[in-house]
Amino acid sequence: MTTSTYEGMDSAVVLLSGGLDSSTLLHYVSRRLGIGNVRTMSFLYGQKHSRELEMARWQADNAGVVEHREADVCSLGDMIGAASALIGASVAVPDLADIDSESMAQPPTYVPNRNMILLSLAAAYAESNGIRDIFYGAQAHDRYGYWDCTSAFLNQINAVLALNRGTPVRVHAPFVDMSKADVVKIGLAMGVDYSHTWTCYRGGGRPCGTCPSCVERLAAFEQAGAVDPSMA
Amino acid sequence: MTTSTYEGMDSAVVLLSGGLDSSTLLHYVSRRLGIGNVRTMSFLYGQKHSRELEMARWQADNAGVVEHREADVCSLGDMIGAASALIGASVAVPDLADIDSESMAQPPTYVPNRNMILLSLAAAYAESNGIRDIFYGAQAHDRYGYWDCTSAFLNQINAVLALNRGTPVRVHAPFVDMSKADVVKIGLAMGVDYSHTWTCYRGGGRPCGTCPSCVERLAAFEQAGAVDPSMA
Repeated sequence: MTTSTYEGMDSAVVLLSGGLDSSTLLHYVSRRLGIGNVRTMSFLYGQKHSRELEMARWQADNAGVVEHREADVCSLGDMIGAASALIGASVAVPDLADIDSESMAQPPTYVPNRNMILLSLAAAYAESNGIRDIFYGAQAHDRYGYWDCTSAFLNQINAVLALNRGTPVRVHAPFVDMSKADVVKIGLAMGVDYSHTWTCYRGGGRPCGTCPSCVERLAAFEQAGAVDPSMA
Repeated sequence: MTTSTYEGMDSAVVLLSGGLDSSTLLHYVSRRLGIGNVRTMSFLYGQKHSRELEMARWQADNAGVVEHREADVCSLGDMIGAASALIGASVAVPDLADIDSESMAQPPTYVPNRNMILLSLAAAYAESNGIRDIFYGAQAHDRYGYWDCTSAFLNQINAVLALNRGTPVRVHAPFVDMSKADVVKIGLAMGVDYSHTWTCYRGGGRPCGTCPSCVERLAAFEQAGAVDPSMA
């Protein structure tokens, strides 16, 4: 990946969950790509906790974005509640050790069609502001679990958006071929403050350290030769 | 179009705005295709009026659906308010006579990326209920104005959804190649009660008769050799 792909861009919408990947992406877009007019967007879709959203606000403020939006799609949570461990009260978030990924079509933390919904809303937000570029923090590791984090998925989303005769919006995922450790390395080099990011699928005062997301994050920091400040 | 394409389907989600096309579609799916387990879905996205939604509830009840859902995506309205005459208080709904469709990328009643958002939410709802088929009331006339009512758009949406390894959902638009007059003929033959549908872009006690949507509806009834009961 080279940054020349993004030459000439002066405005963008960044999907910002407040997790590790999207927080790194925000600073990458702003500092590394030098895009001045950045807007961020978070989503309330009925998540069990809102720690991520607090972190998203902090990172957006820290990056000096033009506007930070929180889109409320809690209806999604109402509709699909029992179908995802991230939303439904009746489904517990599993430890990574308890997930048999070979035998499952999608992990229990999968939220049905979430990413298509979020990207569609981000595209509406971008289009309404005359912005043609959206940045999305999918990275290589997510592919193994989620069908809607792959390059193929993004290409097809872009094929839909390209049909727009007015303001065709394009989704970019500069980390899509990188490991989470690579993302951490990029972020640390830019001085991203990872103590203000939230990755744990569970809420609480501090990350649990055992859910799939925590385990992956810990491994990524270890591979990057660094210590995760939120676990320290 | 033949109904054999739909053979063997026993459940479906129908996008139901409460307008002429989607109300006809609901009864078509239920009566003509004989699909027994039908769920309907309407959307609150910050429309200026809710007449359509009342009509949608009436039609869903009349068709005896398993469940009728109203998904709240008013955040969409907040985000794009000024960009659409269907939402923004500062933008008036134009009369058809005042629209110069040749010179515009999209008519002022276009809502940025709305249909992709609605179809994404419907797909999440379908997937969460193990349903693989969604019906959508796009018809041929809409194509001239809206990029997101075409067959090409639907094909690309389906190309995204087909990537889902768990429950790939498919969007069907049986009216996509028909004129609005053809849709009216189908509905009248099935006994659809069009007095309980709402098409006017403006709210109010009765349809205005001059907005683009009213003019098209009136012409469709005339071409079908019938009288629109909501205008009578």
